[in-house]
Amino acid sequence: MSGSSMGRNFRIMNWGESHGVAVGAVVDGCPAGLALSVDDIQPALNRRKPGQSHIVTQRKESDEVQILSGVVDGITTGTPISLMIPNQGQRPKDYKNLQQAFRPSHADFTYQEKFGIRDVSGGGRSSARITAGWVAAGAVAAKLLATAGIEIIGWVEQVGDIICEVDAEKVTTDQVEASVTRCPVESTAISMEALILKVRKSGDSIGGVVRCYVKNMPVGLGEPVYDKLEADLAKAMLSINASKGFTIGSGFDGVSMRGSEHNDIFINEAGKIRTKTNFSGGIQGGISNGMPLDFRVAFKPVATLLMPQTTVNAKGETTELQVKGRHDPCVLPRAVPIVEAMAALVLADHWLGKRLSKL
Amino acid sequence: MSGSSMGRNFRIMNWGESHGVAVGAVVDGCPAGLALSVDDIQPALNRRKPGQSHIVTQRKESDEVQILSGVVDGITTGTPISLMIPNQGQRPKDYKNLQQAFRPSHADFTYQEKFGIRDVSGGGRSSARITAGWVAAGAVAAKLLATAGIEIIGWVEQVGDIICEVDAEKVTTDQVEASVTRCPVESTAISMEALILKVRKSGDSIGGVVRCYVKNMPVGLGEPVYDKLEADLAKAMLSINASKGFTIGSGFDGVSMRGSEHNDIFINEAGKIRTKTNFSGGIQGGISNGMPLDFRVAFKPVATLLMPQTTVNAKGETTELQVKGRHDPCVLPRAVPIVEAMAALVLADHWLGKRLSKL
Amino acid sequence: MSGSSMGRNFRIMNWGESHGVAVGAVVDGCPAGLALSVDDIQPALNRRKPGQSHIVTQRKESDEVQILSGVVDGITTGTPISLMIPNQGQRPKDYKNLQQAFRPSHADFTYQEKFGIRDVSGGGRSSARITAGWVAAGAVAAKLLATAGIEIIGWVEQVGDIICEVDAEKVTTDQVEASVTRCPVESTAISMEALILKVRKSGDSIGGVVRCYVKNMPVGLGEPVYDKLEADLAKAMLSINASKGFTIGSGFDGVSMRGSEHNDIFINEAGKIRTKTNFSGGIQGGISNGMPLDFRVAFKPVATLLMPQTTVNAKGETTELQVKGRHDPCVLPRAVPIVEAMAALVLADHWLGKRLSKL
Amino acid sequence: MSGSSMGRNFRIMNWGESHGVAVGAVVDGCPAGLALSVDDIQPALNRRKPGQSHIVTQRKESDEVQILSGVVDGITTGTPISLMIPNQGQRPKDYKNLQQAFRPSHADFTYQEKFGIRDVSGGGRSSARITAGWVAAGAVAAKLLATAGIEIIGWVEQVGDIICEVDAEKVTTDQVEASVTRCPVESTAISMEALILKVRKSGDSIGGVVRCYVKNMPVGLGEPVYDKLEADLAKAMLSINASKGFTIGSGFDGVSMRGSEHNDIFINEAGKIRTKTNFSGGIQGGISNGMPLDFRVAFKPVATLLMPQTTVNAKGETTELQVKGRHDPCVLPRAVPIVEAMAALVLADHWLGKRLSKL
Repeated sequence: MSGSSMGRNFRIMNWGESHGVAVGAVVDGCPAGLALSVDDIQPALNRRKPGQSHIVTQRKESDEVQILSGVVDGITTGTPISLMIPNQGQRPKDYKNLQQAFRPSHADFTYQEKFGIRDVSGGGRSSARITAGWVAAGAVAAKLLATAGIEIIGWVEQVGDIICEVDAEKVTTDQVEASVTRCPVESTAISMEALILKVRKSGDSIGGVVRCYVKNMPVGLGEPVYDKLEADLAKAMLSINASKGFTIGSGFDGVSMRGSEHNDIFINEAGKIRTKTNFSGGIQGGISNGMPLDFRVAFKPVATLLMPQTTVNAKGETTELQVKGRHDPCVLPRAVPIVEAMAALVLADHWLGKRLSKL
Repeated sequence: MSGSSMGRNFRIMNWGESHGVAVGAVVDGCPAGLALSVDDIQPALNRRKPGQSHIVTQRKESDEVQILSGVVDGITTGTPISLMIPNQGQRPKDYKNLQQAFRPSHADFTYQEKFGIRDVSGGGRSSARITAGWVAAGAVAAKLLATAGIEIIGWVEQVGDIICEVDAEKVTTDQVEASVTRCPVESTAISMEALILKVRKSGDSIGGVVRCYVKNMPVGLGEPVYDKLEADLAKAMLSINASKGFTIGSGFDGVSMRGSEHNDIFINEAGKIRTKTNFSGGIQGGISNGMPLDFRVAFKPVATLLMPQTTVNAKGETTELQVKGRHDPCVLPRAVPIVEAMAALVLADHWLGKRLSKL
Repeated sequence: MSGSSMGRNFRIMNWGESHGVAVGAVVDGCPAGLALSVDDIQPALNRRKPGQSHIVTQRKESDEVQILSGVVDGITTGTPISLMIPNQGQRPKDYKNLQQAFRPSHADFTYQEKFGIRDVSGGGRSSARITAGWVAAGAVAAKLLATAGIEIIGWVEQVGDIICEVDAEKVTTDQVEASVTRCPVESTAISMEALILKVRKSGDSIGGVVRCYVKNMPVGLGEPVYDKLEADLAKAMLSINASKGFTIGSGFDGVSMRGSEHNDIFINEAGKIRTKTNFSGGIQGGISNGMPLDFRVAFKPVATLLMPQTTVNAKGETTELQVKGRHDPCVLPRAVPIVEAMAALVLADHWLGKRLSKL
Repeated sequence: MSGSSMGRNFRIMNWGESHGVAVGAVVDGCPAGLALSVDDIQPALNRRKPGQSHIVTQRKESDEVQILSGVVDGITTGTPISLMIPNQGQRPKDYKNLQQAFRPSHADFTYQEKFGIRDVSGGGRSSARITAGWVAAGAVAAKLLATAGIEIIGWVEQVGDIICEVDAEKVTTDQVEASVTRCPVESTAISMEALILKVRKSGDSIGGVVRCYVKNMPVGLGEPVYDKLEADLAKAMLSINASKGFTIGSGFDGVSMRGSEHNDIFINEAGKIRTKTNFSGGIQGGISNGMPLDFRVAFKPVATLLMPQTTVNAKGETTELQVKGRHDPCVLPRAVPIVEAMAALVLADHWLGKRLSKL
């Protein structure tokens, strides 16, 4: 296997390349009886698609999803749901001069070495375009989770050194979508936008952090030892292009705390057991405790730069690389729906898995 | 499944509880022809075992591993290798008063809710004791990787606010093992030890960071889209008890960098393609690029405190909890061999997987 | 999961319904470097497709496969190969009167009970139309196996009581394809054809046996204990619609033999170890021994009859059922390429798996 | 992986060799809350164990199972259940003269070729002794299924040419256990016993058929396309040592029937939908229909003979082989609990899987 599947109970197989005919995913394991149509999926894809604002790549893609199977009369039948998103904006000529040069911090070199061949158009399988399949499948997962009231909200918490301070409990999707940056605090969003534009102007790129918060979490999602909920979230997040780190709850900040500060004290709140604080990020012993999930994903600055760079080609010769084309100077705004989709896929998988835990 | 398996090609199933008869793991997929004996496994277990120094839990466990199958005349046969480590230091009486109270930031509550039953002795399956099975299996993986020259070194980089600055390329196992803290810089190690003792004296606990560095990495380990090498490492690390975060290469620090600083420029060094810098942490596009793997894992302060804490019991009543017994004030020194073992398991899996990539 | 995946190393996910937009399969795990085009796949689909002769269903389907990903410039890249076959001959109106009645020996009742919903058009997911995805993927597998010289030949050995006696070692694809029945012996083929036509005329149906023979088998395919080669073949064959039995080598006939007759004696033939007889069917201890694979699959008479049948409807009321539409009176001729495809998928999986067995 | 795992929801990993320290299995996925003790498992092992009667191998094994994890106070906790059966009757010296010779129709040759090494003592991993792990795990599965009233009964239907005609619906475990042959009809059992003794006297062996019948089957077990219930049963049965064939319902006899005879007509029996006949063997479209499961497994005559045989050795030289030791002349009596165990494992897996089918 080339490792393109995720999930055990809610399982998807993702396929496609940047400049091929289409990209897509097959969802195997969505229970029968869920109302589902293109309208449930397209909005998520629109939030991910290129050309959505002036701060992202201007590649033209309508990213219109088709449901090829698994749904009859608007209801899932319990059989595989095949989702396809035709590619439109292929411009293979943009990549001609890359045929020999290994782009720095891209997958050109590793693909060539591993497979002995690589699809140079748009990076082929290593392109972030393949996340469209995840986003489409994630929308199915999110629809499933919505039947249980579970709500996933992601936003841009940081771009470069600009950090958005906000009460996570109060962030709404409307606030997030109000800015092209997907930062929910207007003043911070404006600063981030300015920074992204400035970086782009210099032909450079910048990274950032997405924070993701999940409300109305049921207790009991996750498995004790290896398939812990945070472990599956970590894998899902680190499998997103350009991600470099994952933290849950207190994360790296927690290491300097004393246990007596960090422990989340249980309280009985009107008959419901919850914790006073949430340094655990909603998971204890690998299993959700009913508090909101709270995690962060770090994204590096985009590797594709519109400035000359020195590199080597397939023959090992030093060469100058000048990339053209349409690229994001900062992936963060478009990363938000991807993070949410991956979270939904992991949660749907464990939400179903919980049905198997007791006699 | 309760999610106790890891790996696709080099696959293990982990079993056991803190105060049961034994803990263990079955390794399925170790190729035939590897020289293997208890002597290859025991040293790793000794580095993980309780009672190894004055700064860790004093629970008495000799942690002697037995190889029950899969090896004939000191050579693996290609069939499952069953590893068992009998438990010795069970003291179930220590846990009597915990039977009703949910320990803060432990798995008591979530297990009870998920399974409707829980093993109160030592936390049952949620105990860090179950990592012994991973460490044993990881030693088999490490032996396999050693045939390709791959070398994994982990160390304690941070305890509380004390950070060890060191040239990763030069750290040796001897330096790491020279101190009970597993910090390779003597002066820093002494400070860390003092901090741990101080924290323990107050009945409290403290967290830290393990850094892991893998030398002599082959190019081509990892899969393009979901089973990326960093994704599988992230999952493995977040499945370790008390871990709260994972970063590869630049991690969260990279988000403030410009792409032009962060890109790892390819160079031809005596006929071998490598990169000038290693912000990528040895992985590009999910696949190892031949540079050293470089990642970090954050561990929270241990949840078990030797001071009174308020909590609720299974009936939802507020209650006072006073834990006794033998516990680690800081997991970091014992976390090092666990991080190494999990890294070895992931790498062995992908090292085998690479055999499938080309015709 | 709804169980639509097969294989561990050469893995496919199959999707689609009888009267949906399309059917297809995604192949994950085909090694990079294999020359592959539509021309490698279409011939197998043509052998499976409806309307190919006067003795099969006259549903109109051109069954033209599209390769949506995983191949660049005619060479596989090691990434998922998405195969799609658009549906054309949908005639949902044929099924209107079936909406309430459970067709005897069909999946209507079990799907309705399991999923609480069913796709009545053409049986939805339970239709043999979904085997098109397997056949397409199987052609990729067969191309891969051909690089090692492995050759898979299936034929119709029995229809009703008419049995084809033939020296398996000498059967050629040309002989098989010479008759619309896919029986390689002309005189027997003529009798079978006459029987099928007679049965159809009476609105009835008839079953039969496919025999499959694999030449140039390498030694060492299959795993010792559960994923035995014959076990995976058995699963693959029993997952084909209408199959009721599987035997390898001597099968049920072997039970009356003495061990001294049945044992396959090893001989050294010009430096190559082989066996005098092949009652084992090419597999010993779950692993191929280099002799030809030799197995049989039993197919029941088609459940769809063009005669009135009594049944019950979803309300539990007794009702008369009269099916119209275009149906096969005997699946055997079209089952041959399906059996071959499933065999190829299993063998490709184990052919890759063998790379993992030794250090 | 060496393929030693089975199941997706109720998953086991089997380990051990004939003459190693122990054999065993780890069960991952048994729901929490099931009452379970050694007494639930030992009886099944006693029915499989050697030395149980005068017609089976006289190897001395008490086959006493130990539960090492996953059960607290007699109740499963939802975590892995590790089952171990120490080996006792090792007599490696019996196998010395086999070190070079490949036993006919055994796995010696294929293991040597695949792994480059083999465990000659008792056939190592290829020994039927490893079925003890399956039988132990199967007893856990059977206990789980018993909570739903599901009852599995297997018996010896044929030995050589002697066939037991019986009304499957009326066969009881007591009848089966009344004879050392495990044939439920006394007169036939006596003939079978005489045949087995006669065959053994001549140093030869004989095969047979086990029939398995499952009562109180729920509707809805099995998946539509690949993981069909009969497909998983077929794989499980063909993975048992010495099995050569599997049929469900009408099997190979159904191929000569007309569809109008073979179709199982639905009727409403006191408000419950069932079928008049059961040629389907309890499964339609891969999913159980509530009728009894009815399947058969063919076993070849045992390959180990107590008479001289010609073979080749590892150097390719022709040699004479004379096996000594303690062997079964006919595996059928001991195969019954193995078939039942494998059926239980498959059914437990799908019984849990059904929980995932609907919203």
